[in-house]
Amino acid sequence: MSAKIIDGTSIAQEVRQEIAEEVKKLRDQNIVPGLAVILVGNNQASRRYVTMKTKACKDLGMHSVLIEFPEELTQEELLLKIEELNHDDAIHGILVQLPLPSQIDEIAVIDAISPEKDVDGFHPINIGKMMTGQDTFYPCTPYGVMVMLEKIGFNPEGKHAVIVGRSNIVGKPQGQLLLNQNATVTYCHSKTQDLEAFTKNADLLVVAVGKRNVIRREHVKPGAVVIDVGMNTDDNGKLCGDVDFEGVKEIASYITPVPKGVGPMTITMLLFNTLKSAKNIYSLKLDTLTC
Amino acid sequence: MSAKIIDGTSIAQEVRQEIAEEVKKLRDQNIVPGLAVILVGNNQASRRYVTMKTKACKDLGMHSVLIEFPEELTQEELLLKIEELNHDDAIHGILVQLPLPSQIDEIAVIDAISPEKDVDGFHPINIGKMMTGQDTFYPCTPYGVMVMLEKIGFNPEGKHAVIVGRSNIVGKPQGQLLLNQNATVTYCHSKTQDLEAFTKNADLLVVAVGKRNVIRREHVKPGAVVIDVGMNTDDNGKLCGDVDFEGVKEIASYITPVPKGVGPMTITMLLFNTLKSAKNIYSLKLDTLTC
Repeated sequence: MSAKIIDGTSIAQEVRQEIAEEVKKLRDQNIVPGLAVILVGNNQASRRYVTMKTKACKDLGMHSVLIEFPEELTQEELLLKIEELNHDDAIHGILVQLPLPSQIDEIAVIDAISPEKDVDGFHPINIGKMMTGQDTFYPCTPYGVMVMLEKIGFNPEGKHAVIVGRSNIVGKPQGQLLLNQNATVTYCHSKTQDLEAFTKNADLLVVAVGKRNVIRREHVKPGAVVIDVGMNTDDNGKLCGDVDFEGVKEIASYITPVPKGVGPMTITMLLFNTLKSAKNIYSLKLDTLTC
Repeated sequence: MSAKIIDGTSIAQEVRQEIAEEVKKLRDQNIVPGLAVILVGNNQASRRYVTMKTKACKDLGMHSVLIEFPEELTQEELLLKIEELNHDDAIHGILVQLPLPSQIDEIAVIDAISPEKDVDGFHPINIGKMMTGQDTFYPCTPYGVMVMLEKIGFNPEGKHAVIVGRSNIVGKPQGQLLLNQNATVTYCHSKTQDLEAFTKNADLLVVAVGKRNVIRREHVKPGAVVIDVGMNTDDNGKLCGDVDFEGVKEIASYITPVPKGVGPMTITMLLFNTLKSAKNIYSLKLDTLTC
């Protein structure tokens, strides 16, 4: 048996289409969802990401601004800009691209973003709401995984979901979102002894470690759904995930490729959160989207 | 083999002694840690709990006030009182005893408590901080369990911790606190299929379901540490936990009894959090306590 390949690009496209329709309806009421993206310094990968994010906004009819600062920006200057954006009525989402230069405390920056405009879902108050099952902005990558699962018809209830990796932005919230949907959830990580014993027992395996070939065929239960959040390069400099795709696809029921798997969903959910924020602020209901 | 019984009363006593010494030092500087407890209505169990809490405060030399309201209190009146306490310099911790009458929204009440005085650790911002590994007020019951584990010399790192029950105040934060200490963590709950397959694999089993005999001998791996957070009554009206104590104690390495297990730790950690809050507010370091 060979796994079905989950086409992230196509699912993302489908969700973006729904978002674009919602944006159009809002624009008819003279409301334009707006995202501000802050880039500090010259990290090339960061620059590529923010360009993709602002472009995606514009493609869907949203307003977006890219605010660039030099590497030597002070924390105070950044906090001032955030404070200004918190009060800017044209901006519904604020995103500060991480990582930041070492003179700036990331926690202080995240805390400074208004929770109502925290479309990354990184503010502790939004994390706390997510964990207690309240509606809020969910972090974009794990939220994108939830939407993918829904689109392939995978219902987490009663399933054993094993998360490999426990970062604050992927692994930990992924587990909570799956728990909210009634999965039995196991968190594995670098200190886990006998990783294979856990992963081999997973109906759903979400891998977000940042290391090639962490999960191979022998780690996977036949028929499992395997979601690869990793983003690495192989010996030839080609993009690859954390999962040995060729080996695992022989026994999984579904698998995401890298690239064109989870990646396109992350930006999509950022757009979704920005739309949601605009609607929240105007007290409108998200009436057509299912996610 | 018969398990060692973890003596919650004695561990709680030991920690309270440490707290009392810290309180004495603070009082020498004219700082008296103060806890305000709000009780709404006539729930007898709630009244018993708040009496225990305020008495424990006084026993350790802390200031405590019990504020009682009738069952028909409006939400607005309660929020006004909380706002007043948020600004009361003699009060370092605010606790609203749950459950509240149905006309009052518990989430709105928890959100209204200043996170700096949220000694129950229920405010979403404190939950978010806990989940991202930041220092904050941890919810008292799971925090008490962590202290118990430390006192018996159980290091969670690399161990498989299985949490049965996923309430916002016990199960979920218990899992995160154990994850922060490098355990591999599994959350089980009412939708878990084949509970025994998970619990049987646990080095540490924390049970917080609220149902008698959920965990029996056949659920437990020989040598496991078993922590029973349940609080039920048996057929004779006697207090009992979620674990079949007699059966499980034959194969566990450690087990908590009910009563005199986790129970005394909950109030102890409330006192600890109140002390911590007083020290935070006066920017003093918690210099002697290890937990």
